[in-house]
Amino acid sequence: MFTVEVKVGLKKGVSDPEGANTHKSLELLGFGEVKEVKSLKLYRMHIEADSKEEAVKRVEEMCMKILTNPVIHTHEIEFL
Amino acid sequence: MFTVEVKVGLKKGVSDPEGANTHKSLELLGFGEVKEVKSLKLYRMHIEADSKEEAVKRVEEMCMKILTNPVIHTHEIEFL
Repeated sequence: MFTVEVKVGLKKGVSDPEGANTHKSLELLGFGEVKEVKSLKLYRMHIEADSKEEAVKRVEEMCMKILTNPVIHTHEIEFL
Repeated sequence: MFTVEVKVGLKKGVSDPEGANTHKSLELLGFGEVKEVKSLKLYRMHIEADSKEEAVKRVEEMCMKILTNPVIHTHEIEFL
């Protein structure tokens, strides 16, 4: 059993209003040291697989089929 | 300059319909090996600070003030 994190973010050039607004709000609250904020979606899942390679392969399939929209999203897969 | 990831999740006992629905959809699509899905929010930010300790302190303040609702959310801070 593996614990996998899938981070789904926006591709470069796709606007990220949530990140931009969070940044603006942080600045208004006095956190001027924050230089950039990006907003991402994180899925943390438990998955049964024989190996890490097999798990990555299956998670990539999940990303293609349902977790991301490849037109606008990028994704990163990490093991905990 | 540090790159910090803030992972905002739901406390134990708080229902996570997005995670549950993602899990259900994955099962319906044939990914029966997935045993649990949790949905979290991820903020990736660049922050200027003199030290990691100082950065953590400031990010904790941001979490208290705007990034999380401490009644229902937990958060994790990680450096990239």
